[in-house]
Amino acid sequence: MATKQSNQFEVPETMKAWVLGDPDELKQIEKPVPEPGDAEVLVRIDAIAVCATDLEILENGLPAMVEGENPFNKDFILGHEYMGTVVKQGPNVDEYDVGDRVTVEVHAGCGRCPRCREGMYTSCLNYGLRSKGHRANGFSTDGGFTEYAVNNINTLVHVPDDMSDEEATLVVTAGTAMYGLDVMGGLIAGEGVVITGPGPIGLMGVAVAKAMGAGPVILTGTRDNRLEMGKQLGADHVVNVRNEDAVEAIQRITGGKGVQYVLECSGAANAMNEAAKMVNRGGRICLAAFPSEPVPVDLAYLVRNNIYVFGIRGEGKSATHRAAAFMAQKRFDAKIIHTHTFGLDEVPTAIKYAKERIDDAIKVVVKMRDEEAA
Amino acid sequence: MATKQSNQFEVPETMKAWVLGDPDELKQIEKPVPEPGDAEVLVRIDAIAVCATDLEILENGLPAMVEGENPFNKDFILGHEYMGTVVKQGPNVDEYDVGDRVTVEVHAGCGRCPRCREGMYTSCLNYGLRSKGHRANGFSTDGGFTEYAVNNINTLVHVPDDMSDEEATLVVTAGTAMYGLDVMGGLIAGEGVVITGPGPIGLMGVAVAKAMGAGPVILTGTRDNRLEMGKQLGADHVVNVRNEDAVEAIQRITGGKGVQYVLECSGAANAMNEAAKMVNRGGRICLAAFPSEPVPVDLAYLVRNNIYVFGIRGEGKSATHRAAAFMAQKRFDAKIIHTHTFGLDEVPTAIKYAKERIDDAIKVVVKMRDEEAA
Amino acid sequence: MATKQSNQFEVPETMKAWVLGDPDELKQIEKPVPEPGDAEVLVRIDAIAVCATDLEILENGLPAMVEGENPFNKDFILGHEYMGTVVKQGPNVDEYDVGDRVTVEVHAGCGRCPRCREGMYTSCLNYGLRSKGHRANGFSTDGGFTEYAVNNINTLVHVPDDMSDEEATLVVTAGTAMYGLDVMGGLIAGEGVVITGPGPIGLMGVAVAKAMGAGPVILTGTRDNRLEMGKQLGADHVVNVRNEDAVEAIQRITGGKGVQYVLECSGAANAMNEAAKMVNRGGRICLAAFPSEPVPVDLAYLVRNNIYVFGIRGEGKSATHRAAAFMAQKRFDAKIIHTHTFGLDEVPTAIKYAKERIDDAIKVVVKMRDEEAA
Amino acid sequence: MATKQSNQFEVPETMKAWVLGDPDELKQIEKPVPEPGDAEVLVRIDAIAVCATDLEILENGLPAMVEGENPFNKDFILGHEYMGTVVKQGPNVDEYDVGDRVTVEVHAGCGRCPRCREGMYTSCLNYGLRSKGHRANGFSTDGGFTEYAVNNINTLVHVPDDMSDEEATLVVTAGTAMYGLDVMGGLIAGEGVVITGPGPIGLMGVAVAKAMGAGPVILTGTRDNRLEMGKQLGADHVVNVRNEDAVEAIQRITGGKGVQYVLECSGAANAMNEAAKMVNRGGRICLAAFPSEPVPVDLAYLVRNNIYVFGIRGEGKSATHRAAAFMAQKRFDAKIIHTHTFGLDEVPTAIKYAKERIDDAIKVVVKMRDEEAA
Repeated sequence: MATKQSNQFEVPETMKAWVLGDPDELKQIEKPVPEPGDAEVLVRIDAIAVCATDLEILENGLPAMVEGENPFNKDFILGHEYMGTVVKQGPNVDEYDVGDRVTVEVHAGCGRCPRCREGMYTSCLNYGLRSKGHRANGFSTDGGFTEYAVNNINTLVHVPDDMSDEEATLVVTAGTAMYGLDVMGGLIAGEGVVITGPGPIGLMGVAVAKAMGAGPVILTGTRDNRLEMGKQLGADHVVNVRNEDAVEAIQRITGGKGVQYVLECSGAANAMNEAAKMVNRGGRICLAAFPSEPVPVDLAYLVRNNIYVFGIRGEGKSATHRAAAFMAQKRFDAKIIHTHTFGLDEVPTAIKYAKERIDDAIKVVVKMRDEEAA
Repeated sequence: MATKQSNQFEVPETMKAWVLGDPDELKQIEKPVPEPGDAEVLVRIDAIAVCATDLEILENGLPAMVEGENPFNKDFILGHEYMGTVVKQGPNVDEYDVGDRVTVEVHAGCGRCPRCREGMYTSCLNYGLRSKGHRANGFSTDGGFTEYAVNNINTLVHVPDDMSDEEATLVVTAGTAMYGLDVMGGLIAGEGVVITGPGPIGLMGVAVAKAMGAGPVILTGTRDNRLEMGKQLGADHVVNVRNEDAVEAIQRITGGKGVQYVLECSGAANAMNEAAKMVNRGGRICLAAFPSEPVPVDLAYLVRNNIYVFGIRGEGKSATHRAAAFMAQKRFDAKIIHTHTFGLDEVPTAIKYAKERIDDAIKVVVKMRDEEAA
Repeated sequence: MATKQSNQFEVPETMKAWVLGDPDELKQIEKPVPEPGDAEVLVRIDAIAVCATDLEILENGLPAMVEGENPFNKDFILGHEYMGTVVKQGPNVDEYDVGDRVTVEVHAGCGRCPRCREGMYTSCLNYGLRSKGHRANGFSTDGGFTEYAVNNINTLVHVPDDMSDEEATLVVTAGTAMYGLDVMGGLIAGEGVVITGPGPIGLMGVAVAKAMGAGPVILTGTRDNRLEMGKQLGADHVVNVRNEDAVEAIQRITGGKGVQYVLECSGAANAMNEAAKMVNRGGRICLAAFPSEPVPVDLAYLVRNNIYVFGIRGEGKSATHRAAAFMAQKRFDAKIIHTHTFGLDEVPTAIKYAKERIDDAIKVVVKMRDEEAA
Repeated sequence: MATKQSNQFEVPETMKAWVLGDPDELKQIEKPVPEPGDAEVLVRIDAIAVCATDLEILENGLPAMVEGENPFNKDFILGHEYMGTVVKQGPNVDEYDVGDRVTVEVHAGCGRCPRCREGMYTSCLNYGLRSKGHRANGFSTDGGFTEYAVNNINTLVHVPDDMSDEEATLVVTAGTAMYGLDVMGGLIAGEGVVITGPGPIGLMGVAVAKAMGAGPVILTGTRDNRLEMGKQLGADHVVNVRNEDAVEAIQRITGGKGVQYVLECSGAANAMNEAAKMVNRGGRICLAAFPSEPVPVDLAYLVRNNIYVFGIRGEGKSATHRAAAFMAQKRFDAKIIHTHTFGLDEVPTAIKYAKERIDDAIKVVVKMRDEEAA
C-alpha cells in the first residue's frame, strides 16, 4: 500500500537538521527526510519552541530511561515542542489530511505494553524501543529542530485557522500542565490551587487551572515580571517568595485553610516540603519539575496528612487535546509567554537565549517560514 | 429521647482506665463510663492490641494535627485497636444492637467538612474537634486501654461468631493495609506487589494482597522469622535485605520487569527511593510507614518515571469492612501475628513486650475477659 | 451550648408558609420558625425558584423513596431552589456567619450510612429519616416557599456580593447539570457533548459544558426560542427536532463520529435510545430527566457498544460548589433563563406560570424582599 | 526482519477451518495458515469453547458494528474462546516465546483511536477495520474453529502448566465477568452482589465475585442444577425464580437492604427493572447480557435512585489477566462448567450440543489434540 501525498507539497529528499555533536554542541547537517509508516504522517515543521528539557539533553544527553547508546556525535535531532503541516500520510491514514495544520505531543506509546493498554502511554514500558512502536520525538526518536518529522497520529492535535504557528507550539506545554491537574483530580472548579514556579509550565498551569474554574489560583515565584504574567493569565494572587515565606503566604491568603492542590513547577529543593504544608489534609501535589539531586523530604508529614504526590512524565491522558480546546476557545492568551523568535539557521542563538534567559526570555520560538508562504 | 440499654449488660458508673501520665508513663485511674450520643454506641471492650503508634504517643504525646493541649498528665486513654460488645445505643441508633460483637476503626470524621463530604473521612479537616463531631479514639478522644468506649457507628464492623476476640483486634491493621492497596488502584489480581517491612501492617499487607489475587507478592525485611510468617500469609517470595540488595532482588524475581505496586511498611530511610526502583514506569507506591526525620528523596526519578506516591492516614474508604470480609471468609490466618496476651491490669507489661519486642513479640493483645464469660 | 444570633437580624416566632393542602392545592399558613441544630443554620429566605419537581410533588405527593405518610393536608412546605441570608447558627457552627448570603443544595445526607461514607450523600440510604440526620428540604423536610428554613451547613454555598438573589437561586440547577457531567467523566474539554431538552437543567448543562471547555456542545429541543437561549449560553449547534431527526443531526454535525457524552434533560420517551445512537462506542449518557412511564429501551445496543448510563439524583459530589464557582467567575449568564418574578404572597401564581409556561416562562422566581432592604 | 520460528513446531501451509456457509451452516474448508505481523504471533489452537455469541453469529451474521459485507458464504472462521500454543512470532515480538501456552482475549484495539488511547480497547472506534490494526478474532477477523490463528500479543494470557487446555478456554468467560465487576467499582469485598442468570458468564461471575471477597453473593436462575453449580462456585444464596419472586428474594436475604451490585447475565426482558429494585440507592448494574428486542425500562426509577447502568462489550481493561490470575491460584474450579468435549471434525455436533443444551450442556469444548501429544 503506497503512502499518499498531495501534489500541493513537494517534499525534498533531504533536509537541514540540527543534531547533537559533543555535549553542549549542536551541528547542522543534511539528513534524509524520513518516511511515515503505519499510523504515521510526515509533518513539515513550521515552528518549534525551545524547552528547558532540550537544554538538559544538549548538555547531558538523554534521560536514563532511553535505551541505547550515547546520543552525542550521532545524528540525533533535538526538540519536541513543534507544530507544522501534514505533508504526507503513511499507509491507511485518514485521520489527518495532507495540508492539515497540527501541533504535536511527545509520546507515542508502543500500544502493546500493559501501561499503554491501560491508557498510560507516556509511561510506556517499551520506552525508547522504536522497533516496538514507541516514539518520543526529541527524546528517543528524531525531534523538531529540522524541516520534517514523522509523527504517530496519536500525537497530533489539529490547530485552528486563527491560532498562529507560535501559539500552537505552546499547546504541549499547556497540555503538560493540564495533565498535572487531571491526575490530581480534575474537578477543580471552585477549589484552591497553588502553582509554584512561573516557568512556562507553571504559567500555563495558572492559565489552565483558571480556565477550569479553580479559585483561588495562586502563583509563587521569585521574579515580579513573571508573576505579573501569571496575573495576566488568571492568577488570583501572586507571591514573591523573596519577600514572604511561601507557606505563610498561602495560609494568609486562604485564611489558614490551605489549598486542595499544588502543581509544583519550580524544581526548588524545598518545594516538595513546602507544597505539603500548603495543601490541607488529604491534599494532592503534582510534581512537574524536580531538583537535580535527591533532597530531604518529610515523608512523615505526607503519611500523617494523607497527602498524595503525583510525579508526571509528559502530557499524558490526551491532556494536550483538552489544553488545545481551551486555547482554541481563547480562554487564555498563551502567547504572552512567547518572547523571542528566530529562524532555523539561528537555532544555537535561540537556545542561548532560552538557556541564559537573555532579555528575560521565556518561550523562544524558532520559526521556519512566514505563514503567508505556507 | 432516651438511650436504649438491654438488661443483659449492667454498665457500671466508673471504669478502670490506663491514662497518660508523664511521658513514657501510664497510670491506672478510675474514670466515669462515657455516654453514647447521636449515632454512637457504648462498646464494652473485650480485647485490644498494642500498636506501634501507641508507643509513639506514650513517648511523645499526640501527633501534631490534634488540636489542644498537652495530653500528658491529663486523663487521656491510649489505644485504638480494640474490639468488644455493644452494651448501649445512643439515640436513634438501630444499626447495631446491644449484644453485637464489634471491632472498630479509628476515624469517625466530622461528616461536615469538604473531605468528609467526598468520603475521605480519615483526612477530616476538623480532626480533633470533638465539638464538630470528629472522633479518633486513642488519638483525639479516649481510646481502648479501659473497660468501655464510645464509638460512632461509622467506626464499627461486625465480628462473626467464629472469630476470636484476639483475631478481631487485628481487623483494623488489615484494614490499613487494604486501604493502601485500594488507593494505589485496587484491581491488583495478577499484578506484582512488593511489601517492604514485615511489621503487623506489612504482614497483613501480604495477606490482603494475596487474598485479592496479586502475584507475585514479595515481602522484604531483615528478620527471617518474620519473613517466614510472611510466607505463611501468602508471600510468593521473601527477601532478607541483610543478604541481598532489595532492589536487585525484586528485579531478579520479576525478570527485570519490576512490580506495579509497593506498599512501604518499614519506615526505613531509603525505603522510598528503593520503592521507586522496584516499580516499573507508571508504578505506584503507598507509604504506610515513615522515617522520623526528613530523608533524601530522588524526586527526579519519580517525575521521569511517572510514579505516584500515596501517603495514607489510617484505614480510610471503609477498607476495614473489606478486610473484615476477607478475614470472615478465612482467606488468611491473621492470628499468626498475634504472639502474646495479657490482662487489663498488665497493660504496662503488654506495652513493654511490644516496645522491646520481648520474645519476638509482634501483636500483643490485652484481653479483658474470658470469652466464655462474655 | 446556646445558638448564636446576631442582633442584626430579628427572627420572629412564626412565619408565613405555603404548605401542601389537597393535591394541586397550596395553602398559606403560619408556622413556627424552626430552630437550627448541630451543624445547622437558620436561613432567612430571600428568593426561591420554582422547579418542575415542585409541580410534580404538588400534584402527586412526594416521590416513593421518602418514608412516611401522605404529605397532603399536613403542613409540608414545598420548594428547594432557594437562597437567602444566614440569621442564626446552630451549636458549634462557625463555617457560616450570621449575615452571610448563601444559596442551597437539597441533600444533607445522614452522614452515617455506607453511601454517605463514600461521599454519595444524595443517595443516602437513610433518605427521609430526619431522626438519623437526613434532610432534603422541599422533599422530606420543610422547603423554601416560606420565610425561614433550617439548613445543614453541608448544603450551603456562599453567594458573592455581585450575584443577585435571583441568579443565586439558579445555582442548584447548574449544580445538577454539573453533577451529570462529572459522573460521566468530568474531563470534557475538547470533547463532544449533546444536551437533549432545553429546560432549565438542559440550558444550564449547555452553559456548564461550555465553561468546562467541551466542544462541540449541541443542544436539541423543539422550541426555537429556547434553542436560541442555548446559543447564548454557549451551544455551538442547536437542533430543532421538529425539523430534523435528532440522531441524524448529531451525526451530520460530528461528521459521523458522534459525541462522547449525552446529558439527557428532556424526559422524552425515546430519548434514551436516541442518546445511545448519538454517542460513539464507549460513550456515556447521563439521565437527568425521565419519562413518567416505563419506555422501550434497546439494551442490546448499550451492551454491544459498551455504553454507560448514569441516573442521577440531585446535585451530588458537591457539584453545586463547582457550578457556583463558574457562575461567580461570570463564565456564563445564568440569568437569561430567569423570566418572571413574583412575591411571597403570589406563590400560586408563580407556580401557575411555571406549570403552564405562561408567557414562555422558564425560571419563575419568588422574591421575598427588595435587595436594598436586606 | 524475518519472523522467528522454532524448529519445534512444524507449521503447515494450509489448515482445516470451519467457515460460515449459509445462515446456520458451517462448512469445513482448507485455508492458508496466516502469517503473524508486527506485534502478533501465530497460535496453534489446542482447544476452543463454544460461546452463545457464536450461535448468534452462525444464525444472523456479525453484529452491526462490524464493517463490511455479509460474512455468509465467504470464508469467515467462527469462534473466539480458544487457547493454544505459540508457534511463530511476528517481527519484533519477544513478549511471548514459541512454545508458550496461551489463552486469548477477543479484542485487539487499533491502538490509535481516542478510545484505545484511554485504555477502552474493546470500544475501539475502528472496530472491524483490520487495516487500522483492529482485530476481534471470531467477530471481525478469523476465529478459532480451525488449527491456527493470528493473535495480537495484547490478546494473550499465559496459561500455567497445571491448567488443562479445557480450563484455559474458560478464562475469557471469567474475564468478561470480572470486567463487569470492575466497571461497577471493583472493590467489592464485603459487599452484596447479585448475579442474575446462571449461564457461563453468570456462573463465572459468581466465582469471581466470591474470589474478590464479595458477600453475600446471590445467584438467581430457573434451573436448580445450574443454581447448584453456582453454590459450588461460591454463591452464598441461590434463588430459583420459578419458585420465588427474584426481587422479594433479594430483599428477604438482605434484610430489606438490597445489594450494591447486580451483574445481569440472563438477558430476560424484565431483568433490568428487577435489577434496579435489587440494588439499594446509589447501586450499580452491569449488563453482560441483553434481550434481543427493546424492552420497557423504568428510567424514572434509575434517576430517582441514582443508579448507574454499565453495558459492557467483551472483556475490557485487561480483566482477562485478573481472571486468569484467580484461576491460576485455584480460587475456584471453573472446570465444573465444562460439560462436553468434541474433536475438530465434530464442530457442528459441538455447536448443536451448546445450542440445544443437549444433556444439559453448559460449556462445550472442541479439543484439537491430546495434551500428551502437544
